[in-house]
Amino acid sequence: MVTESRRPRVVIVGGGFAGLEAARALARAPVDIVLVDRQNHHCFQPLLYQVATATLSPADIAWPIRAIVSGQSNLRVVMAQVTAVETGTRTVQADSLSLPYDYLVLACGVTHAYFGHDEWAAAAPGLKTIEDARDIRARFLLAFERAEIADDDAVRRRLLTFVVVGGGPTGVEMAGAMAEVAHETLRADFRRIDPRMSRIVLIEAGPRILPALPDNLSYYATTTLEGMGVEVMVDSRVTDCTREGVTLGNGSRIAASTIVWAAGVVASPVAQWLGAEQDRAGRVIVDADLSVPGLPNVFVAGDLAAVRGAQIPGIAPAAKQMGRYIGRVIAARTEGRAHTEPFRYRHAGDLATIGRRAAVVKIGRLELTGFLAWWFWGVAHIYFLIGLRNRFVVAITWLWSWLTFRRGARLISVAEE
Amino acid sequence: MVTESRRPRVVIVGGGFAGLEAARALARAPVDIVLVDRQNHHCFQPLLYQVATATLSPADIAWPIRAIVSGQSNLRVVMAQVTAVETGTRTVQADSLSLPYDYLVLACGVTHAYFGHDEWAAAAPGLKTIEDARDIRARFLLAFERAEIADDDAVRRRLLTFVVVGGGPTGVEMAGAMAEVAHETLRADFRRIDPRMSRIVLIEAGPRILPALPDNLSYYATTTLEGMGVEVMVDSRVTDCTREGVTLGNGSRIAASTIVWAAGVVASPVAQWLGAEQDRAGRVIVDADLSVPGLPNVFVAGDLAAVRGAQIPGIAPAAKQMGRYIGRVIAARTEGRAHTEPFRYRHAGDLATIGRRAAVVKIGRLELTGFLAWWFWGVAHIYFLIGLRNRFVVAITWLWSWLTFRRGARLISVAEE
Repeated sequence: MVTESRRPRVVIVGGGFAGLEAARALARAPVDIVLVDRQNHHCFQPLLYQVATATLSPADIAWPIRAIVSGQSNLRVVMAQVTAVETGTRTVQADSLSLPYDYLVLACGVTHAYFGHDEWAAAAPGLKTIEDARDIRARFLLAFERAEIADDDAVRRRLLTFVVVGGGPTGVEMAGAMAEVAHETLRADFRRIDPRMSRIVLIEAGPRILPALPDNLSYYATTTLEGMGVEVMVDSRVTDCTREGVTLGNGSRIAASTIVWAAGVVASPVAQWLGAEQDRAGRVIVDADLSVPGLPNVFVAGDLAAVRGAQIPGIAPAAKQMGRYIGRVIAARTEGRAHTEPFRYRHAGDLATIGRRAAVVKIGRLELTGFLAWWFWGVAHIYFLIGLRNRFVVAITWLWSWLTFRRGARLISVAEE
Repeated sequence: MVTESRRPRVVIVGGGFAGLEAARALARAPVDIVLVDRQNHHCFQPLLYQVATATLSPADIAWPIRAIVSGQSNLRVVMAQVTAVETGTRTVQADSLSLPYDYLVLACGVTHAYFGHDEWAAAAPGLKTIEDARDIRARFLLAFERAEIADDDAVRRRLLTFVVVGGGPTGVEMAGAMAEVAHETLRADFRRIDPRMSRIVLIEAGPRILPALPDNLSYYATTTLEGMGVEVMVDSRVTDCTREGVTLGNGSRIAASTIVWAAGVVASPVAQWLGAEQDRAGRVIVDADLSVPGLPNVFVAGDLAAVRGAQIPGIAPAAKQMGRYIGRVIAARTEGRAHTEPFRYRHAGDLATIGRRAAVVKIGRLELTGFLAWWFWGVAHIYFLIGLRNRFVVAITWLWSWLTFRRGARLISVAEE
């Protein structure tokens, strides 16, 4: 038996899908793991838009990292913000702590990118964390409250215009959910405004929404959204974002008080820490075994990794596969076994939901649309939610809000503006 | 039929228990009601401590006011902060709005009082709103996170000392729940600290906790809390509160990083607005019909009201009774009927829970303790929760956390400190 002090130290940065899978794959390995995250919770990002649109509560889709891994005795959790990695001394700096490592797994994800316009962030928050979702929920719900007491018609129209920038799955799901809340959930709740008059605009720079899916599914999503009252604008590039609204490439302006950014992401500054090569989005370029060229003990997983010569989408299943792969490579090395097989991504499929009646699903050659796709989407997401209680509560909450058109989590709570 | 423009206008300030009951009692009266609240949600305050200790999510005990009253067509809701009442012109100022009234119901509650030491507020938050509960939850959970990475023994001890000031029901329930989370829920989740070593101190200025209950129940509560590992200190007056801890009247200090204030309340500045007589806690002294002396069209309900010659506790059933009474008085007057019967408070009973195994209940001459009292407490609280979904989710969440010792809502989310 190896004595405790000699066991290799593994530091995992990030308690997302990739980090947790890496930790799990090392559960039986003779290593001492430190899992560092600046949050105390793992967040199920695919459902964040449901928190932002007041269907689910934050705690329904977030779970304390400690509770997830508490059974794993070779691991301890540290809640701290990583500020630097020193590859020379093999140390991670996290707040006031120095964490030495023999193996390092970087899985700290991405944040929103504003194409060089960081000043847009205040007007158009993105959707990556529980705080983001709570912020958007408050903006969204407050817009109706303010419209109800506004006297000026133009002000009211601006307050009731909601813009989602970016036509990927997140943008499509946000726009669909916003339309439902405005047109159905809130219908009877106001006296001076009619929430059904709200305008929801989905803006996509490319020629069609959901570009990862085939043409026909993308077309289906567009017509379904339009049937729900969403204006879908393609070939439209946003050139300015302020608290007053957005400006498009053709010079037109949309006055809107609530803007959600679902258009682009940028990686954490990990490549700089490592002095490693990065792609245009700041992702670290890694070799086929997901290690950083020249740093064989440093691995990168999840959204943060750009695998040389491969196109891997920034979705949860990809992050999990990478995390699991890295965990196995490290386990093999610490046990003196060879693990030479390169990482190979298996694409399970693409899916996006459009409100509470439709979705689009593509798995291999199977394509689904409509209600059946929606059920598939719902079951898949509940299944993958971590934690039995969460699955149960999410299922009940969905069922309830589906049956009643109500939204359960319509809390506005913001610091004073 | 009275024409719409001539219908008396009723302004209700506050969407708590009293305000909602007043609105409900006026549902069929020929009046136009404006319900003003600075929050968009009604909060079930008796369960706030469960949000603060990470058992329930905010949305489990809060419900959008608009959704509660959306079926009431003679009422509109305005989300705004009331800043003044002008009794001469009969107008309520709420943010930029002027709301004229014929009848005014003031039910905007109380906030924490620090006995003239407002500087203690930053170190010892109270528990009146969802934001308060979220703040306390973050402090409570962060203390363990910080202790886990602290190197200094004294620092670690301070981080793991939790002080609750005030031995009323809220203080007793907070201290009991904190002890359970520290000693049971978090037991297995840390590697360098043992959460069971946490010290939870309940400080009461008077000679015994739960002074509203008989001696024997108060004694039972004390021994039960002590059995759970809570230190109960009576006859102890707090003379200073800082981020470092509390100082007591006898000069001793308790080093503690988390302090919860459950000791005193002060009314909203309503009495000043009205130029009305107030008691020591700032509550408005009202006549037997709950109207303000000299202002027969202005009523005060709930915690905010001090009824001349009566002792009415600041609890939810009392607030509801007052609200309902006022609604009926206004309805009678607008219909030209006399309503001369004075308000008479019917005390249903007192109850407080002590962790997840015991409670104390006194209803008339019936006294219950232990597990039976706990079930009584649970059923009563679920029953009174507004909204079917909430009752259901709260019941499941409780059952789940009771069966597993887990806490479902362990999210830390705070703005950067």
